[in-house]
Amino acid sequence: MSEFRREHDFLGEMEIPNEVYYGIQTTRALDNFHITGLPISREPLFIKAFGYVKKAAAMANRDCGVLSPEIAEAICKACDKLIAGDYLDQFVTDMIQGGAGTSVNMNVNEVVANLALEILGHKKGEYQFVHPNNHVNFSQSTNDAYPTAFRIALYWKIDNFVKSLEALQESFAAKGEEFKNVLKMGRTQLQDAVPMTLGGEFHGFSTTIKEDIQRLNEAKMLICEINMGATAIGTSINAPEGYPPKVTEHLRELTGIPVVLAEDLIEATCDTGAYVQVSGVLKRSAIKISKICNDLRLLSSGPRAGINEINLPRMQPGSSIMPGKVNPVIPEVVNQTAYYTIGADMTITMAAEAGQLQLNVMEPVIAYSLFNSLTFMENACYTLKNKCVDGITANEEICANMVMNSVGIITALNPILGYEESASIAKEALATGKSIHDITVTERRRITQEKWEEIFSIENLIHPKFINS
Amino acid sequence: MSEFRREHDFLGEMEIPNEVYYGIQTTRALDNFHITGLPISREPLFIKAFGYVKKAAAMANRDCGVLSPEIAEAICKACDKLIAGDYLDQFVTDMIQGGAGTSVNMNVNEVVANLALEILGHKKGEYQFVHPNNHVNFSQSTNDAYPTAFRIALYWKIDNFVKSLEALQESFAAKGEEFKNVLKMGRTQLQDAVPMTLGGEFHGFSTTIKEDIQRLNEAKMLICEINMGATAIGTSINAPEGYPPKVTEHLRELTGIPVVLAEDLIEATCDTGAYVQVSGVLKRSAIKISKICNDLRLLSSGPRAGINEINLPRMQPGSSIMPGKVNPVIPEVVNQTAYYTIGADMTITMAAEAGQLQLNVMEPVIAYSLFNSLTFMENACYTLKNKCVDGITANEEICANMVMNSVGIITALNPILGYEESASIAKEALATGKSIHDITVTERRRITQEKWEEIFSIENLIHPKFINS
Amino acid sequence: MSEFRREHDFLGEMEIPNEVYYGIQTTRALDNFHITGLPISREPLFIKAFGYVKKAAAMANRDCGVLSPEIAEAICKACDKLIAGDYLDQFVTDMIQGGAGTSVNMNVNEVVANLALEILGHKKGEYQFVHPNNHVNFSQSTNDAYPTAFRIALYWKIDNFVKSLEALQESFAAKGEEFKNVLKMGRTQLQDAVPMTLGGEFHGFSTTIKEDIQRLNEAKMLICEINMGATAIGTSINAPEGYPPKVTEHLRELTGIPVVLAEDLIEATCDTGAYVQVSGVLKRSAIKISKICNDLRLLSSGPRAGINEINLPRMQPGSSIMPGKVNPVIPEVVNQTAYYTIGADMTITMAAEAGQLQLNVMEPVIAYSLFNSLTFMENACYTLKNKCVDGITANEEICANMVMNSVGIITALNPILGYEESASIAKEALATGKSIHDITVTERRRITQEKWEEIFSIENLIHPKFINS
Amino acid sequence: MSEFRREHDFLGEMEIPNEVYYGIQTTRALDNFHITGLPISREPLFIKAFGYVKKAAAMANRDCGVLSPEIAEAICKACDKLIAGDYLDQFVTDMIQGGAGTSVNMNVNEVVANLALEILGHKKGEYQFVHPNNHVNFSQSTNDAYPTAFRIALYWKIDNFVKSLEALQESFAAKGEEFKNVLKMGRTQLQDAVPMTLGGEFHGFSTTIKEDIQRLNEAKMLICEINMGATAIGTSINAPEGYPPKVTEHLRELTGIPVVLAEDLIEATCDTGAYVQVSGVLKRSAIKISKICNDLRLLSSGPRAGINEINLPRMQPGSSIMPGKVNPVIPEVVNQTAYYTIGADMTITMAAEAGQLQLNVMEPVIAYSLFNSLTFMENACYTLKNKCVDGITANEEICANMVMNSVGIITALNPILGYEESASIAKEALATGKSIHDITVTERRRITQEKWEEIFSIENLIHPKFINS
Repeated sequence: MSEFRREHDFLGEMEIPNEVYYGIQTTRALDNFHITGLPISREPLFIKAFGYVKKAAAMANRDCGVLSPEIAEAICKACDKLIAGDYLDQFVTDMIQGGAGTSVNMNVNEVVANLALEILGHKKGEYQFVHPNNHVNFSQSTNDAYPTAFRIALYWKIDNFVKSLEALQESFAAKGEEFKNVLKMGRTQLQDAVPMTLGGEFHGFSTTIKEDIQRLNEAKMLICEINMGATAIGTSINAPEGYPPKVTEHLRELTGIPVVLAEDLIEATCDTGAYVQVSGVLKRSAIKISKICNDLRLLSSGPRAGINEINLPRMQPGSSIMPGKVNPVIPEVVNQTAYYTIGADMTITMAAEAGQLQLNVMEPVIAYSLFNSLTFMENACYTLKNKCVDGITANEEICANMVMNSVGIITALNPILGYEESASIAKEALATGKSIHDITVTERRRITQEKWEEIFSIENLIHPKFINS
Repeated sequence: MSEFRREHDFLGEMEIPNEVYYGIQTTRALDNFHITGLPISREPLFIKAFGYVKKAAAMANRDCGVLSPEIAEAICKACDKLIAGDYLDQFVTDMIQGGAGTSVNMNVNEVVANLALEILGHKKGEYQFVHPNNHVNFSQSTNDAYPTAFRIALYWKIDNFVKSLEALQESFAAKGEEFKNVLKMGRTQLQDAVPMTLGGEFHGFSTTIKEDIQRLNEAKMLICEINMGATAIGTSINAPEGYPPKVTEHLRELTGIPVVLAEDLIEATCDTGAYVQVSGVLKRSAIKISKICNDLRLLSSGPRAGINEINLPRMQPGSSIMPGKVNPVIPEVVNQTAYYTIGADMTITMAAEAGQLQLNVMEPVIAYSLFNSLTFMENACYTLKNKCVDGITANEEICANMVMNSVGIITALNPILGYEESASIAKEALATGKSIHDITVTERRRITQEKWEEIFSIENLIHPKFINS
Repeated sequence: MSEFRREHDFLGEMEIPNEVYYGIQTTRALDNFHITGLPISREPLFIKAFGYVKKAAAMANRDCGVLSPEIAEAICKACDKLIAGDYLDQFVTDMIQGGAGTSVNMNVNEVVANLALEILGHKKGEYQFVHPNNHVNFSQSTNDAYPTAFRIALYWKIDNFVKSLEALQESFAAKGEEFKNVLKMGRTQLQDAVPMTLGGEFHGFSTTIKEDIQRLNEAKMLICEINMGATAIGTSINAPEGYPPKVTEHLRELTGIPVVLAEDLIEATCDTGAYVQVSGVLKRSAIKISKICNDLRLLSSGPRAGINEINLPRMQPGSSIMPGKVNPVIPEVVNQTAYYTIGADMTITMAAEAGQLQLNVMEPVIAYSLFNSLTFMENACYTLKNKCVDGITANEEICANMVMNSVGIITALNPILGYEESASIAKEALATGKSIHDITVTERRRITQEKWEEIFSIENLIHPKFINS
Repeated sequence: MSEFRREHDFLGEMEIPNEVYYGIQTTRALDNFHITGLPISREPLFIKAFGYVKKAAAMANRDCGVLSPEIAEAICKACDKLIAGDYLDQFVTDMIQGGAGTSVNMNVNEVVANLALEILGHKKGEYQFVHPNNHVNFSQSTNDAYPTAFRIALYWKIDNFVKSLEALQESFAAKGEEFKNVLKMGRTQLQDAVPMTLGGEFHGFSTTIKEDIQRLNEAKMLICEINMGATAIGTSINAPEGYPPKVTEHLRELTGIPVVLAEDLIEATCDTGAYVQVSGVLKRSAIKISKICNDLRLLSSGPRAGINEINLPRMQPGSSIMPGKVNPVIPEVVNQTAYYTIGADMTITMAAEAGQLQLNVMEPVIAYSLFNSLTFMENACYTLKNKCVDGITANEEICANMVMNSVGIITALNPILGYEESASIAKEALATGKSIHDITVTERRRITQEKWEEIFSIENLIHPKFINS
């Protein structure tokens, strides 16, 4: 038996190794596209999503009477293998390719066709029985099948990212509770401001992430709008009557994802707005988490020549030369992941703007960028939670000393003394190094010691009550 | 009478020209910040929004019993002047400043105080009667008043931008209707694809903008969350009991904007997520409109060595050297506005990420960027509608000829002939220059003339029906 | 006498107010382009540069015998008025326009023609004597005149920016000298590292800016390559023999700028690489200066709950609510200017990529962005120097205490004790709060007090010498 | 024999599988950093560069008398294995990590130490003989070794990218020569302009790439400035006298790269300006190549409803539904690679700006981004050359017909007829569909047939001569 089979397309003929399930068009793509060196199998959820898309299409084609039940069933069984995660190594196309996803779609069509052939007792390549284009891709175009699979994969990946955000949010919320009585200086513009609690600060981190979870869930709904049945450019050319709603419904049932058919298929086929929105919201999360990591690094700075309000878990020796030094490596890696994501949003922006007429040919780099961003950010969130936030401890005494030693507490005297005298006391404290207490109570005798204690009780500093003159 | 009055703050004393309503702190800001050369009065809605914020604060302070009714009333009357758009020339602070908005807030506090003083029959600068900090800014901090005014101004500006988008969307929809019977070639990847109508293409433009209007309206709701009463860092220090909800309610009633008080004031005071979201959605609109303008320029290219399917209105001679040349200047200026907006989103991204601890000090450049983007994009949308889209005409004959002359119409024969034979016919047509009709009907006799005419009727090309073999 | 004159172009006729020097095409541009609301006269150096370009062209046309000496002389005299900065208010075209600069070029052509007409004793609009296109624009196209004027203006503006950088660099160098004996802790990853001097830190700021001055001067040379005589698309159509080198030489002599004629005029006419390079280098400066400002804000944080190694000049009260608070407003405004510049680079990137075929039509937004970035950054550098760096003082005692109190000084014992024992001492110090001295000299007796004093002398900490075990 | 060895650092003890050459710190890094899932061995030149850095350091330490010749020799031999590309699988640290490269440096230190131990006949982990920190990393810090290795790897990778650009440039130059007599319409703003040759257009592509090669070679020199001997923060603490120049010289000799020691080591240790510059120039190349690919796609659009001036090689079937359709997949994939690179520049921008005080901790994501961009762009350039440009053919007849059929050729009559009459002829041609020839010669009799033929000779259109009236 030969080790090769011959396949042809309208550009010519090639020998394909018998053991592979992909065919001539995938082979051409392999030859044409060497950019990242990373195959699409790096994103198993994408292949799985394609399994569902091809299965739903086969079922709808069967329902419309344009595909025989036998072939449809074989295709469905082949798709089930993809859904199960088998044959991943057959998805060899580079993550970044030309052709608006045609190579990826054909990679799937060819693998599914050959799997279906084997299921039906035929040999690979006997496409007269099950053909990649005429059967597996029936009623479809790359321009509907590819973005639909992309969206389903995105849905799952956003879900996964949201789960990591939820875990992180809960971790911050727990710390917010744990530190709720730790008094510390708040800082605006890096200058001492007024007292607050460390718990309030961490609770704020939790709140801000919670809001992003809402935004991501909203964006997730946008990508549920699909264009199956649009075929080439949204005119549904070559799709049988009734196919678009049928395939959409099958897909909804198979995946459990509330996909809906776009009302304007022409617009839907060339539009990348939903990806831009997802990327924009993802960038927002990256910005927020980066800001939080910046704060964690600031608050743990020192230990002796910095702020040192909190301790991050010590993950690894921090220097190849400075003994004992431990660095905030976890927030650092998360910052960098955020910068990746922000850069990826720019890639997506340029790709989205470059769409022309009836199609955006740059979708593969959008997919590459969004998949990476979601994967990296999900990893970063779990890393941040498990290896950093969960183990943070507070240096309560240091925090408390900075409050009482501060000039910023003068603000609490503002309503009693007025802004101008308060400012004058603050100025004197700064110039002389004296404490606010000494100037206000002892020297200027502007308020009594009793009043002072009322105002600067821990309870009042944490939940300031309005105290009038 | 002296032409100057003396004012002081805790850094010293200055002479202020008697005719100006702003005071010492604004004067310092004027001296410190020369970056853009553009004063904040360039954004009248921002000043108007501040008028509402200061008025609502005065009313809430009065309600809480911490501000006398007389002073409160004078402040309210002063604010009414700002709301009416008077005294714009007193808002002189540079659009980009340091201090997280303090200079802008103090500019407003000082102008309002001096207006209130005059209303009460005092002279400017007699702050013992109405003080910029102790009265006008009472129960406030820059850190709550500034972002609240910013958000209200944003709300109005988003509204204005949405109106321009609605006008543009309707214009595209009207063209979609006008061109609904103009048959033309669809193109994917700049290669001839399958037939469609010009109306479908323009309707798609309308659809895609309609979706952005929805996104903008969603984003608009996010910025309705305000933090009045948070004061310095969200602990509400120095704000009287009950003040936060009261001031929020006054503001809601005065402006008619459904503002709500943030639940976590610490988070709300340092968070810039809502601006990032607005900017992200605005960027999405910019990307889409830029893509549309790219298409309009492509479709009107030529007239003789290009695609030339449509004619844009001829706005101005297009060349200082090539007589008769007219260029697509309107889409071109819109593209450039979109690029501005995309760049501004990057500025906002960096500014948002740079927030530290209890405040984001970079808000002024966020305001500058968002205000510019919204103004420029609003102008661009009306320009695009009025000076371009409304006047677009179709070259119907050219459109129709390109369809019948195309190879892409072979796709319609796909279900009858199968992908492979269709591909072979297409290949022959491309190699020889022959028409698809000649090869299929006359030479290969694969279908009858009758069948051909059925498939390639205008009606079927516009609304392709599935025709099986 | 009528208050209007009638002008026409090939699109029709319009009434032009008699007092204005611009004509029908500028009037159309005024009508067509309302985007920023800012006229090109905001950039006087751009108008001045156009004055030189039009003058050099007239001289070269005269030399080539295609323009009469009388007309050439009148045009030259008109151009001299532009060069002198007169008639700025006649340059009314919006900073962002369509048409690849045609409107700006025609605005100049029309103003120069009408000025020349008056010089020759004619009335405005009597273009039969001096015509905007046939005479002023002779042998030119917007596609060569516009970018050439842009480049000359850029040259001057880069020069101005470099001067501001030089001033800033010298200020940092002076501080480097002033603080050369101020011992302080160095920090990596915000964690205490090893000792250094404050002078070394400021000297580093000086060095890094010096390198950017070199980069900017290199980039400045790139924009000296011009394409005068390329006319429409680089084929020099309609330009007389010998004109391109002649006009280039005149321009070089008139401006003193070493402009050279591009070798490949077709490439030069559509290429925007030089702008991208300038913007990239400008972005680099923005990044560096932003990093420096971040450092200044960190080092001056506190005063009591921060690092507080240095004091920035106190420019203005820092809070409308917190008395005595002074913020680092100058570095803050510089950070924001840097973010503007980084965003503008993105605008330029998109505009540059959008060039098509023989021209990049997006040059106006490139000009808008580069001009703004250069202006804002120049302003920011002088602001930073004059209002911040020049007045910075050091808190020497605080700096010194942090060094001796640190654990990081253990690194100096590394070569004697080995990394592992040093790490163990560091760990004990961190756990117990003990000083490195106590553990090493008193408790573990690993080195003598004498050796300690040798290693930790101020001199040795500032210029560490290698001390072997 | 046990399958594990025990290693410890100052955070504790771990079991390390005996077969691996890395040790405890790498193992911690493996555990801490799961972001990209891609190990640093993906970049073999980076490992090779580290081999040279560690070897040069060992040699300089030996020369300075602080490392025994035996240990130095063993380290050198171990480094030679890295230089040879062996043991790549031991470099397991994730491409994106925290710690400013410490994990990568320690991964190298540990592998080199264990290789050296085996060379000396010891077992892995017997660090008393050759220690990762005390010997391999002697006189070094991550903060000098890591960026130096990064720069050397960058140098090679820029070289490789330049080679691919040179190949591409020559390919365009060859096409420029091949097409030098193919007359075609030039287009500005997508509107017909004046005639040119296809050769001139392709020659322009060659020129623009040639300029980028120069820019890249300039940027390459910037990264030759290294900071070996700076150790922790640039104070050279723990480095023996004379070590910095010695190690630099060894490195220069070993690699043949003209590395030089930075003058200001403090600045050099925290500065990332050289990376920003490289990325900026790389982005410039990406922009230019993307613009070229946009042009190639435009010029080959059609074949029947587009411009169709050139044919790109047909690489693969272009549609899963439209038979015979072939798409410009190669330019498409190159566009996307360019967008990746532009996004990566944004990541680098943010990372560079985030440097704080004496170090930029974000270097790993800068390395990840630059390495990817250079690899992807190099791949893209070879792909573009080999699979597209080399095989481009011209449709000469189509090109020529568009010229003679155009209105734009009127420009050539401008100097004879004046701009205004030319414009009137153009206008008539556009309105009536008549040719310029018919109106000018036959109807209006403005020039003779002889004059016409002189002006519109192929020769004159290709090299337009100035023809006066």
